[in-house]
Amino acid sequence: MRLIINSGGPQAIDAWRAQFRTFAPELDVVGWHEEVDPASVDYALVWAPDAGRLATFPNLKLIISAGAGVDHILADPQLPRHLSIARMVTARTQTEMAEFVLTCALMLTRDIKRVVDNQARRHWEVFESLRVAADVRVGIMGLGHLGIAAAQLLARVGFPVSGWSRGSSKLEGMPSYAGQAEFGQFLSNTDLLVCLLPATDATKGILNTATLSQLPRGASLINAGRGAHMVTPDLLAALDSGHLQQAVLDVFEQEPLPADSPLWTHPQIIITPHCAAIPDRKERARHTAWLIQSNERGEALPNIYDPNRGY
Amino acid sequence: MRLIINSGGPQAIDAWRAQFRTFAPELDVVGWHEEVDPASVDYALVWAPDAGRLATFPNLKLIISAGAGVDHILADPQLPRHLSIARMVTARTQTEMAEFVLTCALMLTRDIKRVVDNQARRHWEVFESLRVAADVRVGIMGLGHLGIAAAQLLARVGFPVSGWSRGSSKLEGMPSYAGQAEFGQFLSNTDLLVCLLPATDATKGILNTATLSQLPRGASLINAGRGAHMVTPDLLAALDSGHLQQAVLDVFEQEPLPADSPLWTHPQIIITPHCAAIPDRKERARHTAWLIQSNERGEALPNIYDPNRGY
Repeated sequence: MRLIINSGGPQAIDAWRAQFRTFAPELDVVGWHEEVDPASVDYALVWAPDAGRLATFPNLKLIISAGAGVDHILADPQLPRHLSIARMVTARTQTEMAEFVLTCALMLTRDIKRVVDNQARRHWEVFESLRVAADVRVGIMGLGHLGIAAAQLLARVGFPVSGWSRGSSKLEGMPSYAGQAEFGQFLSNTDLLVCLLPATDATKGILNTATLSQLPRGASLINAGRGAHMVTPDLLAALDSGHLQQAVLDVFEQEPLPADSPLWTHPQIIITPHCAAIPDRKERARHTAWLIQSNERGEALPNIYDPNRGY
Repeated sequence: MRLIINSGGPQAIDAWRAQFRTFAPELDVVGWHEEVDPASVDYALVWAPDAGRLATFPNLKLIISAGAGVDHILADPQLPRHLSIARMVTARTQTEMAEFVLTCALMLTRDIKRVVDNQARRHWEVFESLRVAADVRVGIMGLGHLGIAAAQLLARVGFPVSGWSRGSSKLEGMPSYAGQAEFGQFLSNTDLLVCLLPATDATKGILNTATLSQLPRGASLINAGRGAHMVTPDLLAALDSGHLQQAVLDVFEQEPLPADSPLWTHPQIIITPHCAAIPDRKERARHTAWLIQSNERGEALPNIYDPNRGY
């Protein structure tokens, strides 16, 4: 059985092979850059595959995304649409994302950006009062595995949490809003908006002026969904007017974020380099091996991309 | 009944009076700088009182510290030793401190300092793997109200937490170490050392080379106790040798931290301006009013300074 891998580049393939020797010694692992008989490829673990390449494998059984999203795979116009795509959603990914959102939420609550900027200019500022988690209503957009994990962790720390999804997903024990009809109500009760939506046609550009202006004045934003969710000029306008206080941005339309982007130096923006959740190679190899072995046994697989939902 | 206040300076006295009109309208509130008949002072709410001044009030019934510590009051050589000193430990203080420690612990776990420094030079660094809370063993020194609150919150998020105290205090449901005999064992199992000790003769300088060198290589430190706990040259040596990875320092021997301190610019240090927990004026007025009213009714008061324990 053969697995082809496009993740981490040619220099990563030895490390991938070492991992699969542990988790699936029966697999023959080849790199995306290696010459291979297309008919021999059974599985593909990929991130942003070259357009058309997946379609050259006539016996491919399953596409496995190297990340939680599939937008980088759907971008291939010749993608073989009859094949399932498994998203890389592991328990570790959920923990990493939930802790990333918690870290950022606490940093925003305590205005750590100001503290860090003060340190850079050796300025000791006396804070008169502090906000705590209970003072900051967090609203999570996107109630998939990642959104639910983040909501639960934040609630456990004391943040009042609510959730919004396009469909009918709900947060157990927390206020949940659904669809366009309840979006305004959700936003008006949110001091910290967290975007964990998948990238679909319906969610593209959702972080725009119409959305942001419905947040209370002084609200903040964490975008750990996709760069395409954000309308950058709208965000900058909301920050510059003081309507939004701060934003933590982990994802961007173009990554790496270009050095001349105005986002880098904006005083109200914290840039994190798409590091909210990074399942490491070992974790991804373990999960991929388990997916392949489950698929070979004919078992149903979790987190399969659903074209109707768009994720 | 008269309360004299030395907290926030003369410019704060009107704000104090406004608060006490709500919580204890029976109190006559005077500022530390105002002329007053010494015999008329019943209570004193103070932070770092001028040496000798408290001793001039012959009818003083109770000294109330404006903060959780009393070291700034004990520094007065003429302090009337027969009087009780109530420490300002409120539920809000505990929450603020616990959330401060959690914020810093998560920032250290995710190496936010590196992320922020990268942003300052517009550098997009790809992270290969991430640590999560479960990977970082937190050891809390000082198991008073603040240490216990921090331990419980961190454990709730997933950090493996243990505690150490000089005496016999314990953390419920978490490993607890006591005294000098178990200090080494505690340190060797700690990836992130959190100092929440009170400032006493016995704890002065406890964050020294002998202590830090018993932590595993790559450990980090949060000091939210007192500046006097830290031997600054020892900390710098441990950071510079790479034995310690990072430190978050909230307290300093001299505050504000002088502009020429090498701590400001050290690449492995995050400086926070004694802002771990700041009960605001309203909270302190409410608590002070309650202490005075309880004392007048002859009730026992919580968190009274114990000279034998040193806090």
